[in-house]
Formats: sequence, structure tokens, C-alpha cells
Amino acid sequence: MTDQPRFLAACRGLPVDRPPVWLMRQAGRYLPEYQEVRARAGDFLTLCHTADMAIEVTLQPIRRFGFDAAILFSDILVPAEAMGATVVFAAGEGPRIEDPVRSARDLERLRCPAPEEACPYVFEAVRGLRRALGDTPLVGFAAAPWTLMAYLVEGHASREFGVAKRMLLAEPDLARALLGKIADYTVAHLAAQVRAGAQALQLFDTWAELLTPGDYAAWALAYARDVLQRVREAVGPDVPLIYFSKGTAGHLQLLREVPSDVVSVDWRIDLPTVRAALGEGRALQGNLDPIVLLAGPEVTRARARVVLDALGGRAHVFNLGHGILPTTPIASVEALVETVRAWRP
Amino acid sequence: MTDQPRFLAACRGLPVDRPPVWLMRQAGRYLPEYQEVRARAGDFLTLCHTADMAIEVTLQPIRRFGFDAAILFSDILVPAEAMGATVVFAAGEGPRIEDPVRSARDLERLRCPAPEEACPYVFEAVRGLRRALGDTPLVGFAAAPWTLMAYLVEGHASREFGVAKRMLLAEPDLARALLGKIADYTVAHLAAQVRAGAQALQLFDTWAELLTPGDYAAWALAYARDVLQRVREAVGPDVPLIYFSKGTAGHLQLLREVPSDVVSVDWRIDLPTVRAALGEGRALQGNLDPIVLLAGPEVTRARARVVLDALGGRAHVFNLGHGILPTTPIASVEALVETVRAWRP
Repeated sequence: MTDQPRFLAACRGLPVDRPPVWLMRQAGRYLPEYQEVRARAGDFLTLCHTADMAIEVTLQPIRRFGFDAAILFSDILVPAEAMGATVVFAAGEGPRIEDPVRSARDLERLRCPAPEEACPYVFEAVRGLRRALGDTPLVGFAAAPWTLMAYLVEGHASREFGVAKRMLLAEPDLARALLGKIADYTVAHLAAQVRAGAQALQLFDTWAELLTPGDYAAWALAYARDVLQRVREAVGPDVPLIYFSKGTAGHLQLLREVPSDVVSVDWRIDLPTVRAALGEGRALQGNLDPIVLLAGPEVTRARARVVLDALGGRAHVFNLGHGILPTTPIASVEALVETVRAWRP
Repeated sequence: MTDQPRFLAACRGLPVDRPPVWLMRQAGRYLPEYQEVRARAGDFLTLCHTADMAIEVTLQPIRRFGFDAAILFSDILVPAEAMGATVVFAAGEGPRIEDPVRSARDLERLRCPAPEEACPYVFEAVRGLRRALGDTPLVGFAAAPWTLMAYLVEGHASREFGVAKRMLLAEPDLARALLGKIADYTVAHLAAQVRAGAQALQLFDTWAELLTPGDYAAWALAYARDVLQRVREAVGPDVPLIYFSKGTAGHLQLLREVPSDVVSVDWRIDLPTVRAALGEGRALQGNLDPIVLLAGPEVTRARARVVLDALGGRAHVFNLGHGILPTTPIASVEALVETVRAWRP
């Protein structure tokens, strides 16, 4: 055992008493105290743009549940804004890009600014959080280039992301230029979070799930690797890098090539299958189905144990397979945290 | 080579000159002649309920492209209607179940009628199609029990299908009773299509993609197997059974247990990977990404050849990885069909 925080030790594959636990989107709508701040902010982006509010909602789940890591409250579209895109969160809808990137001309509008100048509130929040968090490590994050490209081109969330996927196939040069620009800013955005105090970083490749294995390798993995390698050079070897992808159960051999300390997978594959493909050396994060929590504390306890038993506590960061759902009962989250805390290998 | 129709021979794993080709949802909105009949029908369900119209739109893509198989025009919710659910297709929305199944009482309302009495138009269309189609085989279909349950419980399409998934976890007895009832009707509905003239059957497990491997095995695969086994007993060994599932790249070992002649997969896994897991004996169907066709004829030709080369023409039914998209250009479909026709192993 080390005296490092449990989360950082597990990311590094070091032995820990029990797996650390945090939840994707743990600072979110299922918490009444979040709803209260959100109502005060009025607009979702105001919450992202106001460091005090972002700090407050980041701390809420740490105070309530004592998670082993905090994740900065922000949005994967904040870098799109920083690059010059117009992002709108209309009430009751998902986010929308008002000026989607559809041409070389649209691409020219996107800039690669200094993150601290383009979105100072992000780094102000990170600095404030490091002071407030004490021993709890802070995770910074960004979308992987393909996932951000999917939004920037499509303009909104979509079942198919047909416009964005079509660009990969029909206008590969434009797609490459766009992904390269996004990768440049993403590297800067992540490195700046570490400079401000983030102790680990997670790259979210949510829309990896749309792609064939070949397209995943060429368009998602290639740019995610590039970002992770350049971030590694910028931040040094001590900051754990986590790569999360969704719907990549068919791409396990390709996931071996991801240069991250931790691979985070969704709920649609068993962790031992992922470990067999990736090797004992790689820490894994996940992968309880978020829907389980909707079925109440008892089901949550039983299912959480199945996930814990799957890796026997070796190099495992307990998490959900995707973000916690807004309709999740607090009692289920309590049961989940208690179960992980009580579990021993 | 046999003198059986190419589609039926390939389903049976027999050698053919080149893979047969048909497309899921080939009778659909991308065709102007379909749009014309659809406008005449007024309502989507009228199209399903009127044998003459269902026959006409089923034949349209056969006339235009000469596909190697026709698939009956109907909807996976027609069996839900036959069982007594109220299905509504409002303009501009997806389908809706007005009286979703949420309780044992709701379940009691569902019946398991004789298919020919509950939806005679389906079998009238099948009989008419067999007369009209000549040598082109006709594929009948139904949703697999879990996929139909997802709609019946949720009430509409959903990203998460949280209500339906929650029922599996929180009310397993109710879920089992519902799936059993759906399976009973589905067996009857499929067998009746064969009695009326269908020469192959496809079971669609579209919402398999929502489940963990364990839940897939317990709730989707178990009931799909049951349906396939009972349909096999009812229709005999000569009618090829095709099992289509989406998002099951993480469940390859489980797919081995599916008692179908053909396994049809989406585009997110390479066919050689599926073949390696399932063995040479099993015919595979798929798996071109439907988005490819949006990128035009040239990209379509190149990507279709990749899919053809993947299995070298052995026990392969060429298809898309999911339904053809409404915005697909006709020229891409023409290029696709020409490419498959010209290809030789």
C-alpha cells in the first residue's frame, strides 16, 4: 500500500486497500443542491463560465458522498467556445453549435488561442478547487478530437451524426484539418488544467461508438493518441491519463494502442474481457450500467459487487459505464459508495 | 453452385457465384416511389394495414435494383398492435405506445391471438408477394422479444430505455412474464408468415445494444433463442432463420449460442472477427455502415468492396449494418448493387 490518494495509486496500477470510486457527471442534476445552483445560474453556460459556481457544484458530491476523486464541473463544448464556435444551451434541449463547421471557410474561423485567455474561468475554478479539495484528487478533462468534431460539424447531438461521419468519408482532407486544429487546442486545454492544479486528466471519446473499426482507428484513435502523447510530454509522467470511450467493445485490439494509464469502458463489455485484451499492466475504469441505480439501493449493491469482483480490486477505478442519470435516486448513490467502501479483495 | 436462389443458398452456407445483396429497410423513404404511396396512405400504419400498398412498396426496390431478396413491408410494432397495444405514429415523430406496459395489470391486457385473425393484412401481403415475386425470395420478420418489450414498456424510442431496463432489474418476474407472452405471439407471427409464403425469417434485436453482457444473455438472448427454436420446430429445417442484433460486439461468445442459420451484425465490428468467434459454419450478414451511402457512389463502391473482401464471398449475405437512411441518394444504392454484382471471390 502507498500513502498516495487511493485514486491516483489505482490509476498507476499500485496496490490499494479497495478500488477508489467516483462517477462520471457526479456533479449534476440528480443532486438537489446542484439544481439549486443551476437555478441561480439561470443558464447552463453561466454555470460553466462562473468559477465560484463551478467550484461549488464540483464540491457538492465530494461533501455528500466522499468520492475518491472530484471531476471539474465544465462541459466538453467549452473548448469549442474557446476556439470561437457559438455554443447555445436552450432550455429543455441539448447543446447546439450555432455556426457548425461544414467547409474550409468555416474551419478558418476556428482559432487555437491560449486557454488561460480564452476561458480563464476554467483555470480559476481548477485553482480554487485544489485549495478546497485537500486530499481528494481533482480530475480535469476534455473531449477527444473526434467527439468534439462530431458536435462541431453536426451542430447538435444526433443518433447518427450523419453530417459529421459523412465529412470523414467524403471530405477527408477537411476532416483531417479540423481534427488537427481541435487536437492542438485540446492538448493546450488539458495541459493548462494540470498547470492550474488538476492531478489527473480524462479524455472522453463518447462518439467513438458511431464508427467502424477502421474508421475508429483512422479518425478517433489516431487523434486521441496524438493528444495523449502530446499531453504526456507537456505534463510529465506523474499525471495519470484516462481514456474513456463508448461503444468500443468491437475495437479491443485497437484499445491496446491507446497511450493512457487508464482505459475506461462502458457497461456493454465485461471488465475481465477488457483486461484479457489489454493486459494486466493497464488500469481499467468502470463499468456499472448507470440504469442499475434507477432500480434502487438493493439492486445497486448487488450489481456493484459484481463489478468489484470482476477485477478483484487489481488496478481498478470503480465508476459507471457512462454519466450518472438525472433521475438517479440519492439512496442508490449512497448504497453504491457504501458497497465499494466495504468491499475487500 | 446450386440452382437455389442465391440468397437462400448463401444463408445455408452453400457456395454461390457472389454474395446476394439486400438492404434492411430497402422498401422505404429514400425511394420517391415509396414516398408517393406513403403520401397516398396518409398514415404510416395505413400502409402496414393495407395489403395492396404493403405489396407495392415491398416490390418497388426489387423492380428498381433487382435485390436478391425482398423483405415484407411491415413494422416491428405490428405484433404489439396484434397483442392489443395501441400504437400511434404521429407525423414527424417516432412511434408511440399509448398504453405502455408498466404493471401486471397492464400485462393482462395483452393477448396472444391467432395472427391471421389479429392482423390478416400481413399474411394477405405475404401471399400476394409470393405470387408477384417469382424467383426472388421473400423474407418475413419480427422484433426479438427484448426489443419489442423495450418499446412496449418505454412507450417510445429512447436513448436509454431507462423504464424498460429498470423493469428487468427491479421487477424481473413481471419482465419474464411480459417477455414470455411476447415470445409466444412472436413465434406464432413468424410461423404464420412462413405458412403464407415467406421463405426466410429475420429476428431483429435492435435494442440488444443497451444491455450488459449478463443482461443480454439473460433477457435478450434467452428469449431470442426460445423464439428461434420454437419457430424452427414450427417451420422445419428448410427456412433460413436470420438473427440481427445491434451493438453486440462485446457479446461475440454469446452470439455463438444463437440457433440461427445466419448472424447479422452492425457495422461496428469487422466480419472476420465475427467469423473467427462464430466459426466457418455460420453464414454472416452485413455490414456496410449505412452512412457510407451518404458520401456518394464512389465512396460506396470502395467501402462495399472492403466488406465483400472481408469474407471472400464465403457464406456471406451482403447487407448494411442497419437500415438504409431516408436521405440516401439513389445513385449510391445503384453503385452498391453494381459493385456486389461485379465482385467475384
